[in-house]
Amino acid sequence: MKVLVAIDSFKGSVSSVEASKAVSLGIRDVFTDAEILSVPLADGGEGTVEALVHAADGHVIKQRVTGSLNQTVDAEYGILSDGKTAVIEVSSACGLPLVPIKHRNPLITTTYGVGELICDAIERGCRHFIIGLGGSATNDAGIGMLQALGYNFLDKNGESVGLGGGELRRIRKIDTTHVHPVLKSCTFKVACDVTNPLYGPNGATYVYGPQKGATPEMLEELDAGMESFSQVAFHKIGLDIQSINGAGAAGGLGAAFAGFLQAQLQSGIELVMELANIEEKLGHVDFVVTGEGKIDGQTSMGKAPLGLSKLAQKHGIPVIALAGAISEKGSTLNSQGITALFSIMNEPMSLEEAMAKDVTSDHLRFTTCQLFRLIRAIR
Amino acid sequence: MKVLVAIDSFKGSVSSVEASKAVSLGIRDVFTDAEILSVPLADGGEGTVEALVHAADGHVIKQRVTGSLNQTVDAEYGILSDGKTAVIEVSSACGLPLVPIKHRNPLITTTYGVGELICDAIERGCRHFIIGLGGSATNDAGIGMLQALGYNFLDKNGESVGLGGGELRRIRKIDTTHVHPVLKSCTFKVACDVTNPLYGPNGATYVYGPQKGATPEMLEELDAGMESFSQVAFHKIGLDIQSINGAGAAGGLGAAFAGFLQAQLQSGIELVMELANIEEKLGHVDFVVTGEGKIDGQTSMGKAPLGLSKLAQKHGIPVIALAGAISEKGSTLNSQGITALFSIMNEPMSLEEAMAKDVTSDHLRFTTCQLFRLIRAIR
Repeated sequence: MKVLVAIDSFKGSVSSVEASKAVSLGIRDVFTDAEILSVPLADGGEGTVEALVHAADGHVIKQRVTGSLNQTVDAEYGILSDGKTAVIEVSSACGLPLVPIKHRNPLITTTYGVGELICDAIERGCRHFIIGLGGSATNDAGIGMLQALGYNFLDKNGESVGLGGGELRRIRKIDTTHVHPVLKSCTFKVACDVTNPLYGPNGATYVYGPQKGATPEMLEELDAGMESFSQVAFHKIGLDIQSINGAGAAGGLGAAFAGFLQAQLQSGIELVMELANIEEKLGHVDFVVTGEGKIDGQTSMGKAPLGLSKLAQKHGIPVIALAGAISEKGSTLNSQGITALFSIMNEPMSLEEAMAKDVTSDHLRFTTCQLFRLIRAIR
Repeated sequence: MKVLVAIDSFKGSVSSVEASKAVSLGIRDVFTDAEILSVPLADGGEGTVEALVHAADGHVIKQRVTGSLNQTVDAEYGILSDGKTAVIEVSSACGLPLVPIKHRNPLITTTYGVGELICDAIERGCRHFIIGLGGSATNDAGIGMLQALGYNFLDKNGESVGLGGGELRRIRKIDTTHVHPVLKSCTFKVACDVTNPLYGPNGATYVYGPQKGATPEMLEELDAGMESFSQVAFHKIGLDIQSINGAGAAGGLGAAFAGFLQAQLQSGIELVMELANIEEKLGHVDFVVTGEGKIDGQTSMGKAPLGLSKLAQKHGIPVIALAGAISEKGSTLNSQGITALFSIMNEPMSLEEAMAKDVTSDHLRFTTCQLFRLIRAIR
């Protein structure tokens, strides 16, 4: 019995790694010598560092950097076992949850800390970067990150501008003299699941600005700043960053990565699956077990389990999906590669009870065990 | 795909027949041409008539008879498709739930209505009787039933005694002159899951009398009446009804059936499985689906699903058990023939929500469908 266990976190209850452990125990309750390939899933968002570090036997680095409000924050990122690949979630340095609502102000919030994390990883020997966008408190088009990497953004008087989206409009020129020299030998793969352009009605500012604290006046100012910056950038790099799919992700960080750091932007789950060699692993397993805390239906189901399921379907591997809650009939998911989906609930109980860590783990193990008992009986 | 669906009622939510329908729909969602043998399960107690009538394509008779308090009650019993077999639950005529607590008094409650139901069935051509004991409000050693069938119990003055357990002590002689003439050509099979003797510390009175409203003084009087009656009966029928296993069932009705009507007393589930030809059916199916509302573990799990599972295990057929709640780890049940057990819960919710009829039916269908999707994928 060979099983690929690739399960998302049950948000608010167990992490992807913990869920994976519980499922593995349930399989081994039945097939004691089962070969289990455990790949905690992630979609480039929250949990990506943990998942990839776990999958690649890497380790976590804790580093104090500049927070989005110019305060210090204790951020984390991962270095994989090759010692050359760093995994960074931008939200660890400049995440929206780190900023209390009353302090949210995209005129001043900066991605500077992201650049510091990259510098730190470069110092430690990393040359390949996997970046999870999403959840940032910023709208600075990534200039903060670029500033930390040595880019110098100058105003009409040739003076360096400061930090934050409010400075974008003042930028007239970009000086790359002091850009970190190693940067040109670095590669960046960026997980990005939005396709917004940099500015305009569907751009970073108007779509994501309000939740980051932008007032209607700020929106106008910030969006104009984005547009102005993209013109300055065009003169420098010869690339229209506005038109890059996903330029508007994470307050324009997508544009900075793609335009200045030659990053590939790709869907988070595809990136993670590629990095974890999931397609190759699928060639050698009898079953896939996936899942997440809540399965609502095709559109709201996490991209990770569904992406994996489609890939497994291509290879003809049965996929079992486990969830705490299946609030919509899963028939739409059955046609997406999920052979069968089950709730792990064992009896009526409140959401609060169900989400206790040990309850979720016990439920996962028990349900998995019963499913593999059935499988053993009929194979 | 051939499946035997033999599922108990989910008490308070769906009947055995309704549960069976929902499961069958779930199977056909996957195997549209599945051959489904549907045998609603019962253990001789509540639901037995419905289950057997359904299994044997019979019909239900409604008949007004004497209730345990000498009032009239509208009782029901079943006649199977052979037209010769009646299925009677004694509780339909003299059940404890029909008597408000303040009126419960085993000195006067009578099983007379049970005898009337038998007479009615005889009139309709029935000669074979399947009786579900259990849940009676009476402690009359079955004399009420026998009285309705023509037995005459006489006191020391040669006068007929009245109804109720309080009369037992007065009986000195039994006159069978006017016993229904057809009775001797009738057979009785009685589902009985207790082994209490008729009287004494483990007898009908002391064990079940208190819940039927007996005070300590009544207990003494009733138990003495049982003992006295068993001696009178011995002189008449040459059989010590005290020593029959299950004589004390249903306030001594067990003794009356076994001693006077030559009934076989046997375990309810064995009887029902025998009548439904379950063992023969097991020879031709790929899977068994069973279950009940709540699975607590070996001891409290309904006798029906567990009895069936043991039989299926003997035949090497995988058994899937479905329940609303599995409040104990089912590992003890897995060793009892249940291949795999699953809760049908789809998400955290209250017991009340979960027990709504349509919610239970939907959950049963959905879970069954997903399980058979998995089965289809790996067979």
